[in-house]
Order: sequence, then C-alpha cells, then structure tokens
Amino acid sequence: MNLIEIYQFECSGDPQEAAEQLCQEQSTAQWKRLGVDEDFRPKHGAKIIDLVVTPANAGVQSYIVKIAHPIINFGAKIPNLLTAVAGEGAFFSPNIKTIKLIDLEFPEEYLAQFQGPQFGIAGIRDLLNIHDRPIFLGVVKPNIGLSPADFAELAYQSWLGGLDAPKDDEMLADVEYSPFSERMEILGKLRKKAEAETGEKKMFIANITDEVDCLQELHDVAVKNGINAVMLNAWCVGLSAVRCLRKKSRVPLVSHFDFVAAFSRVPNFGVSQLVAIKLQRLAGFDVMILPGMGVRMQTTEEELRANIQACVGPMGNIKPALPVPGGSDWAGTVPVLYKKMQGYSPSPLVGEGLRPLAEGGGEGRSPQGCSPQGWRAIDFGMVPGRGVFNHPSGPKAGAKSFRQAWEAIAQKIPIEEQKRKCPELAAAYQKFQV
Amino acid sequence: MNLIEIYQFECSGDPQEAAEQLCQEQSTAQWKRLGVDEDFRPKHGAKIIDLVVTPANAGVQSYIVKIAHPIINFGAKIPNLLTAVAGEGAFFSPNIKTIKLIDLEFPEEYLAQFQGPQFGIAGIRDLLNIHDRPIFLGVVKPNIGLSPADFAELAYQSWLGGLDAPKDDEMLADVEYSPFSERMEILGKLRKKAEAETGEKKMFIANITDEVDCLQELHDVAVKNGINAVMLNAWCVGLSAVRCLRKKSRVPLVSHFDFVAAFSRVPNFGVSQLVAIKLQRLAGFDVMILPGMGVRMQTTEEELRANIQACVGPMGNIKPALPVPGGSDWAGTVPVLYKKMQGYSPSPLVGEGLRPLAEGGGEGRSPQGCSPQGWRAIDFGMVPGRGVFNHPSGPKAGAKSFRQAWEAIAQKIPIEEQKRKCPELAAAYQKFQV
Repeated sequence: MNLIEIYQFECSGDPQEAAEQLCQEQSTAQWKRLGVDEDFRPKHGAKIIDLVVTPANAGVQSYIVKIAHPIINFGAKIPNLLTAVAGEGAFFSPNIKTIKLIDLEFPEEYLAQFQGPQFGIAGIRDLLNIHDRPIFLGVVKPNIGLSPADFAELAYQSWLGGLDAPKDDEMLADVEYSPFSERMEILGKLRKKAEAETGEKKMFIANITDEVDCLQELHDVAVKNGINAVMLNAWCVGLSAVRCLRKKSRVPLVSHFDFVAAFSRVPNFGVSQLVAIKLQRLAGFDVMILPGMGVRMQTTEEELRANIQACVGPMGNIKPALPVPGGSDWAGTVPVLYKKMQGYSPSPLVGEGLRPLAEGGGEGRSPQGCSPQGWRAIDFGMVPGRGVFNHPSGPKAGAKSFRQAWEAIAQKIPIEEQKRKCPELAAAYQKFQV
Repeated sequence: MNLIEIYQFECSGDPQEAAEQLCQEQSTAQWKRLGVDEDFRPKHGAKIIDLVVTPANAGVQSYIVKIAHPIINFGAKIPNLLTAVAGEGAFFSPNIKTIKLIDLEFPEEYLAQFQGPQFGIAGIRDLLNIHDRPIFLGVVKPNIGLSPADFAELAYQSWLGGLDAPKDDEMLADVEYSPFSERMEILGKLRKKAEAETGEKKMFIANITDEVDCLQELHDVAVKNGINAVMLNAWCVGLSAVRCLRKKSRVPLVSHFDFVAAFSRVPNFGVSQLVAIKLQRLAGFDVMILPGMGVRMQTTEEELRANIQACVGPMGNIKPALPVPGGSDWAGTVPVLYKKMQGYSPSPLVGEGLRPLAEGGGEGRSPQGCSPQGWRAIDFGMVPGRGVFNHPSGPKAGAKSFRQAWEAIAQKIPIEEQKRKCPELAAAYQKFQV
C-alpha cells in the first residue's frame, strides 16, 4: 500500500536523476548491509510514478513528480507521515534547489485507519438545525482584553442579531485576564438564553489552544458549561494532539490557520495549504477556518478553490469539513463569497443551493463518503469580526446585517431594495463598503 | 512583561505604518467596544521598540523591526506563544509583502516558567562520562527495512568500534517490520554488553516519534529495556507534546529537524531555524540534531553559527543543549567540523577545548545559567550514517575511524601519520574523500 506524494521542484542536472534521489533520500537511503545479499528497495523504496515538466516560469524550469511511498515505512501516524513527506528526505535531496509538497493522495485502506471529523458538514448542520444557508460564525471583538462578562455580552448580542456561532479569537484562549472556565460559564448560560429568545440553535466556539496535556480538560470545561464547539490553532498545538483529542471529544473541532502561512505561502517551496488541510481532516477537524478573500489574506483564487476542495473533496471514510474562508468580511461580502462558492461547486445544485442536505447532497452518498458533487455552494461558513462587532449600531445590528444580506440572496431581493427595508444592512454598506 | 520579537519584512508604503499595523494585527486589532470609553492598547498592544532599514538586496529594501509583545496575551504556553509570533497577525498584515520571524528574546521571568532540558550538555557528558571530546552519535544504516535483531547487531558493532550513541533513523520508529519493544529489548541488552566489553558508557537513541498519546508509553518501553535516550521528530510531533513528555521523562530528549526546513529555509519568509531551536530548548530537548555542513544540507555558515548559538547561548534558567550538526559526515569531516566549532566559540578555551567541563565551562556558572563563554569548541556531537555503517570494513571499523580522527586532533598527530598507524582511518579516507 502506497501513499502518493506530489512535489514540484527545481533542480540542477537531470530531473529524472534528481527525482530518483528524492525517492531514495526519503526512504531507503542505504538499502543493503555490507557483505549481505539483500535489497530493501522493492519493499521499502519510494518510487517515481510520473515526472512531468511544467511550463517555465520567468525562465525557471520546474518539474512535478508523483511518488509512491510505501506506507509500511511510517504507518497511520501523523507525525511519522509528516516525517516521510516533509522531513529530511524531502528538503535535503541533492541537486534539488527548491521543492514544495503540493498534494497527497491516500489509499482508502489507509484512510480507514483514521477517524476524521466526527460531525462533518452534515453533523454541524444538524446541530444548528440549519440546512438551507451558509453558517455565520464571528470573532468577538475587541479580540483581547475584555473581561469574561463583557466578552460574553458581545457574543450574546451577536447571537440575538442572528450569528450562529461567535467564537474566541485565535489569541484568546485560557488567559489570566479572562480565565477559560469563568468565560465559558457565562457564555454557556447566555448561549441557552439566546436560543430561548431567538428560537434558533446557537453555538459558541471556544478556543482551547493550550499545552497538549490541557486540551482534554479545557474541552471538558467547555462542554460541562454547555459550550458546543472548540477551536484549536491546529499547527501550533500539533495535529497529532488533535487526533488524540478527537477520540474523546464530544463537540465539533474547529481549526484556525495560524502558522500554516509560514510553510505554505511561498509558491515554490514548503508544503501547500491544501496538504495542511487534508492532514487537518485526517486529524479530525469538522470546521476549517482558512484565509479567504481580500488583499490582506494573500490567497489566490486558485488556492482558495483548492483549499475548499481539500475540505470537501472525496477522502474515503473521512467526512467533509465545513470550509470557512475568512478575512475582513462584512454583510457586503456575503453575496461575493457565495458567488465564488457557486463557481467552485461542480454540483448541478449550483445557483440553487438551497435544498436541504438530506435531499440534495452531503456525505454518505457515494462509496467515497463525500463526492465533490455532494458539496453545495451553500456549504460554507463566514467568520466576520469588525463587520459584526464594529458595526455602527453594535454587534446585534452587525449580525443582523449578515442575515439580511443572505435573505436578499435567498429571496432574490435586489440589494438596493433590501437596504431600503433593512437599516442594519444599509448602515453596514455605508460604513464598510470601500 | 514582554516577549521581544524580531521580524525582517518587505513592504509597500511606509515601513513605520506597516510595522505599526503588524503590531496591531498580532495583538489588539480592535482595542475598544463601541460606545465605551476604553483602550486595551497600553496593556495588551504589541509595540515597536526599534525599526531599522537593512541594506537593499538586489534592489529590494527590507526592514528589521523589534516588537515588544505583552506576555499576558498568551502566557507560558508554546501553542499560544507560536500563535502570537507566527500566527495570523504575523503573516496577514496589510502592506507587508514578505516577512520572517528571525529571532525571539525571552525575559528571564518568562523562561523560569519552562523546565527546558533536563540534562543539557553537562548532563549528557556525565551520563556518558565523556568530558574531553565531542560526542559521536550515528544513524544505523540501512535506515529502514532491517529486522530488530539485524538492526541491533549493527548498532552493537558501532558501539564496539567506538561510537557513543548510535540511533534510529528519523524514519524508523515503531513500525510493523521492526516493532519498537522488540527492537529495544535487543538493543538494551547489547548496549550493556557493549559497555562491559569496551569499558565505556554507551547510549542508544530510540526514535519514539509517534502519535502524542503513545509517546510516554514508548519512552517507558525504551527505559524499561535499558535504553537511555529518546528521539522525537520535534515539529512533526509538536513541541507542546514534547514539553508534556519532558515532565515525566527519565532520559535525554533528542530532537530531529524534520519539517523545519519547510518554514525556515526561504531567506525572506517564514520562521528562522534559530527560533525553532530556541523553542525546542524551551520544550526540553537536551540534544539538537541540525542540518550541518555540506552542500546537501543547504545551511549557510552564518545560519549554522546562529543555530549553534541558539542551542548553547544564554537563556535564563534553560540549560544549553548539545548541538549536533549533521550531514554526510565521515572520519575526514571530524577535523573540519571541529575547526568550525573553534571559530564559533568565543571562549578562551578555543583551540584547547580539552579541559573537563567542571573546570573550564558549562552551565551553572553565570547568573544566566549558561554563558556563551561557557560553551567549548568540543561541546558538540556528530551523527554520521554512511561514514560509519558503509565503511568498507563495516560499522565497527567505521566507528573506529571517527575515534582515530579525534585522537589525531587531541594528540596533535599529523593526519598522514595517523592514517599510517590506523588502517580504519586510512580506509575511510580512501573511500569517502572526494
């Protein structure tokens, strides 16, 4: 059984030879003992499946190599898998000048050894009882500095206005100025109050990013207080720790993308974000917060599409995760992002996208568990900060403006007409439109 | 109390403004609530301490900014620290085109909240009873594919020849073709046998890289079998998991550099290896295997020096870790690497370097726990693979050739003379010299 690795590289000398050395460096660097008639290469050696030349970019020629790496070398273990695909072998191979791991393809038998997301998109939708629109998350702002009570009050206002799932900022975890248990206690009560008052299911996403031996306890504190999702800054905590937490977790796991840019942003070097996301799915994340649209997020159209595909594409028994492309969102970016999602979805539902998941798509339909056809253009989340919490009339109005923006789409109301009917939406356009 | 972050960046527009935004993005992005008279910036905002222009490189101007980031924002927790310094704030700041975290400086009060290495250089030396020379590690080769018994026999031969600490390859952990407990049982017995036969202390470094919830068990299995050091592919496992293991570990922790290149190699983007090493020291590693000399290792002279400094430089209560610059070593690279180390050591002992640590240097001397002056040019390790295990007369002879190379240095014997006296050394020169 082989893992398929896809690298793009630049080299000096013959690319075939460079690719062969790459295979050796990451597997059987020395394949026999002195004086013994043996050869470990057939069983343990990584092998080239395909090698293609890519169009030269600014005079620099690069190559894409597809390698079959025997899984017996590392097993169904994330740290050992990472070592195999992005360890010394990959980045210290003679004559290879730049190299990027651009994709991984896992055999289904291998995937079957991982749990993956517990809830997935369908599970998140069931928890929230939302089947016909995107999920509206939100980062409570001011992101740091508030007392637990002041923080929770802002989250509460955002629930009342229509957010589904406000959350802690990636920088707000268990800190001395806002102890986690205290914050969760207040948030848990307000979450139930907000549910009672709005008649809607509500979620809070608690940032439990902490040392590995504290994760389970923080998860338990959150759950005990009625909090129904937890976030981890995935690559800062380590994916293996998340996989371990997943075994006993009772609520959806949400990943934040901190640190990923450090190894994925450079076009011709490192590890692609797509690979990072696939590994996050293996580890068990149900929701992926990703760099989304806008100049600040430095993510190309092509990358965003690939990243979303990595969240929802076929992956054996591994459920699809909800993609949440984030970055400076406000009510006016709702139609923009939705349009983009329609362009990404290969589904015949594109442009309609409003049928309940049970009818039209989602997981469990194909032998793959999730076909990309099963993903609908509404199967995404948004995660505004300022767009809700710095709305001129406050977070309740800010949250309302998002729901109003969606209503315009769902009911095919021209935006100018909706703005006339909805002062919160109008105020958002006035403040945030550039 | 502030953490000092040092970034190098390129930007469009005014660098002062870009640096100010960088501070905001990583801390108080929104510093007050609507309609409330408050400002979280004095207590929580990251602040510019210094901003300097660097000499333009190929027409591109870059800047170095020193930022004081309030520790109250993240605390003495590695995942939260990583989020603060290399999270969304650092890599998604407006107008900053490229950015690299090049260094971190920790206040002593902060460092006091971390255990750091349990043994450090002095502890490793005490365990091995070696005070007057570098430590000779080695990667048993063939690195993958061997049965536990065949693998252990090679390690045993290398001990007999003079290696101090052969080790598992980074790709050889607990795998189905060589179950960890079986391998450790045989290695533990042979280690003691080798000690009895050579009259020297011997170490084996067992690769326990695995899912986080297996680390303690694998550590315990190793220790139970008489194995006296464990290795982790640090960034694949996650540093926080290592810090947790450190609390109960009973033997030195050795780090391997897998994945680090992915975020550190590019000159103007990511996180420097120096920062990675400082964080590894915080997590508790006693020994750092690093990319060393030679074309394949793609590490500049300047980087190697900085990385070694990060292993041994002053860091409050945190002990110095043994640097092990690796890469295609054989007996002939012993004098080359030693000479380089002499160049790095600011100590008056340079060029002598043979006094026992208790007399001349090491930790515990200065209020810093480890002054760079305390580090001697012999305080390093080497980690040959082929140079020992592919020696034409086998691993015992290969190991011998390293000790012979060191003997020439210590006793000031001209290398040609030593080669005449030592056939193993002569054979190594004949085979490996390019």
